[in-house]
Amino acid sequence: MKGKPLVSIVSAGLSKFGKLEGLYGREIFAEAVKEAFDRCPNLNPKDDIQALFVGHMGESYEHQGHTGATMADWAGLLHIPATRTETACASSAAALRAGIFAVLSGLYDVVMVGGVEKMTHRTTAEVTEFLAMASDFPFEQWHGITFPGLYALMATAHMHEYGTTEEHLAMVAVKNHHNGFLNPKAHMQKEVTLEKALSSRVVAWPLKLYDCSLITDGASCLIITKPEIARKYTDTPIQIIGSGQASDSIGIYERSSFTSLIAAKIAAKQAYEMAEVKPEDVDVAEVHDCFTIAEIIAYEDLGFCMPGEGGHFIENGETRLDGKHPVNTSGGLKSKGHPVGATGTAQAYEIYLQLTGQAEKRQVKDAKIGLAHNVGGSGATAAVHIFRSE
Amino acid sequence: MKGKPLVSIVSAGLSKFGKLEGLYGREIFAEAVKEAFDRCPNLNPKDDIQALFVGHMGESYEHQGHTGATMADWAGLLHIPATRTETACASSAAALRAGIFAVLSGLYDVVMVGGVEKMTHRTTAEVTEFLAMASDFPFEQWHGITFPGLYALMATAHMHEYGTTEEHLAMVAVKNHHNGFLNPKAHMQKEVTLEKALSSRVVAWPLKLYDCSLITDGASCLIITKPEIARKYTDTPIQIIGSGQASDSIGIYERSSFTSLIAAKIAAKQAYEMAEVKPEDVDVAEVHDCFTIAEIIAYEDLGFCMPGEGGHFIENGETRLDGKHPVNTSGGLKSKGHPVGATGTAQAYEIYLQLTGQAEKRQVKDAKIGLAHNVGGSGATAAVHIFRSE
Repeated sequence: MKGKPLVSIVSAGLSKFGKLEGLYGREIFAEAVKEAFDRCPNLNPKDDIQALFVGHMGESYEHQGHTGATMADWAGLLHIPATRTETACASSAAALRAGIFAVLSGLYDVVMVGGVEKMTHRTTAEVTEFLAMASDFPFEQWHGITFPGLYALMATAHMHEYGTTEEHLAMVAVKNHHNGFLNPKAHMQKEVTLEKALSSRVVAWPLKLYDCSLITDGASCLIITKPEIARKYTDTPIQIIGSGQASDSIGIYERSSFTSLIAAKIAAKQAYEMAEVKPEDVDVAEVHDCFTIAEIIAYEDLGFCMPGEGGHFIENGETRLDGKHPVNTSGGLKSKGHPVGATGTAQAYEIYLQLTGQAEKRQVKDAKIGLAHNVGGSGATAAVHIFRSE
Repeated sequence: MKGKPLVSIVSAGLSKFGKLEGLYGREIFAEAVKEAFDRCPNLNPKDDIQALFVGHMGESYEHQGHTGATMADWAGLLHIPATRTETACASSAAALRAGIFAVLSGLYDVVMVGGVEKMTHRTTAEVTEFLAMASDFPFEQWHGITFPGLYALMATAHMHEYGTTEEHLAMVAVKNHHNGFLNPKAHMQKEVTLEKALSSRVVAWPLKLYDCSLITDGASCLIITKPEIARKYTDTPIQIIGSGQASDSIGIYERSSFTSLIAAKIAAKQAYEMAEVKPEDVDVAEVHDCFTIAEIIAYEDLGFCMPGEGGHFIENGETRLDGKHPVNTSGGLKSKGHPVGATGTAQAYEIYLQLTGQAEKRQVKDAKIGLAHNVGGSGATAAVHIFRSE
């Protein structure tokens, strides 16, 4: 048995992802929390949850900050300490880490972590502007570059250095839309053909519409405990055995490479070492496919394949549901959707389903070791977690 | 010796507070970090600091989120895990707590916590709007109420229930301006007379201009370690012996009382019990005087006096520098200033100076036990920390 458990996940919840009209973020978060409570009848919400950490990227969407207290209030968790964490699109991986620290500190036994974002009531232009706040204001935003442009720089560099093609990028979209088609909670439950992906309109060359993740409303949560009390709450706890996080320059221009995220490599190294796990041990992974190129770079940064081999890795079908290394079985940010603050713990939710055998049509057989890879902005933050079934 | 140390503070830094024209928040944060490093020559910034938690309330001010990575980058702390915490005006008390958990977890030995806000380049109307995001959007902001109005409700309730007067409120301003006059880093280093405070223009009755804290630029930080290694870095570590945080309904209308903050009372109880300290043991306290009424309520919530007695407590001079219970020796939010994200760890910075005998003209003699009380919004978050000198 690999890696000493840091904490155990005893329950998890996910709202429907999509365009959830007429709901506030707090209501969407409460939906995710309700699922987590429903899954765990032995847990008394009012007394057992001792602290809450919530990832939330942008107060601008709903003109609402103070997210920790707001979510605690509406989830029926009044009076517990409740804190928002923000690391851009990795905000809820940071919430998970804060929760892990809180449990390991010995001060709390049972903690809820999660994330939330309500985005679709805003125009695409507004969302693009709010998301851009995760990049460097004086050196990036000021000059008009937004996230599709930043990731397009990475894509062209990867194409130039390694011969990666537009088809490789589109293959990521095809795979993730196939998985999302099988996920009833995904935002866009539809298959996409390679031709359709390739012929969709250009957003920032070489990235086209189908290379970009979705603007989505959604929320996610996990209930984590000290491993020694996990079986009080469930017969099927999932162990978190590795956790890593690192940062990099906020501006992409200061980085030595555009074809790899140093923060992701450092975070992965920390998580693998802590978990005593190697890349080849990972049975199922959720990676941060905010753009298709990001998934290809993730394969390489996580050691699933060699640097530069990401294009061939997707082409050879390695990361399909029936491949040797299934990646983004949920549909990923691409098809399940990317309510930014919610994404980190939504990835963990999918791993939770996979490792407890509850992933239905997208179940990976005998999945025992899972990994979640969550990136903030253009890579100034990355967090990696490793999970194992009992 | 009271209370087992949770962590030790081995250094602390504070930028100048004020209208810092031409500087970005990241530059102001770097100024605070430089002081912390300069105070602690035994510490090697590049190798020793293992994680960063930064309180930051609003990405709107500078159109800049992803604050953790941005601050790590500009403070010379590239690649360490860096996370923003947000609990409105208590954001950096939440950062301190996240740092405490990280150290107690056993995963990190030396952690930096801090906070930052750049506000003065915005108009007062913009700042008021951004701050309002810490209140309830559908039930408060939507109806046009902002923070002076919310605290005015508390003030009128306190006047009605307990006979507190406009003069009592003004006395808080006079005291805190006197202390800020003695603090070279305070935003507004000037004395104010009772007459001047009382005759200043009404903002939201009974709160006048001098009842309101300042819109300020500033940053603060602390370096915390495991207690057993603190003396490697300094001969005068300060111990954190109690930490509490609680939440309340985001909307003030749902609360049973307007004259007390339940979250603050719960947080104080947790901190006192953990620290094995009683209110009368506290030699020096920094409390959240975002409005003068908030300081009066804080006296009561913290048990420095009985409920309803806060007005008499200030009137009797108990909380003056030369009183029995000195409060806000730094000048408080009222005179030192209130760069919201920076305030929590700026309070801890003042306690650090007091307990190490470095508070110069505002030094409280023989201060051994200190307390910091930080409130988010209208009280949906509160955090209390208790400190002792070696």
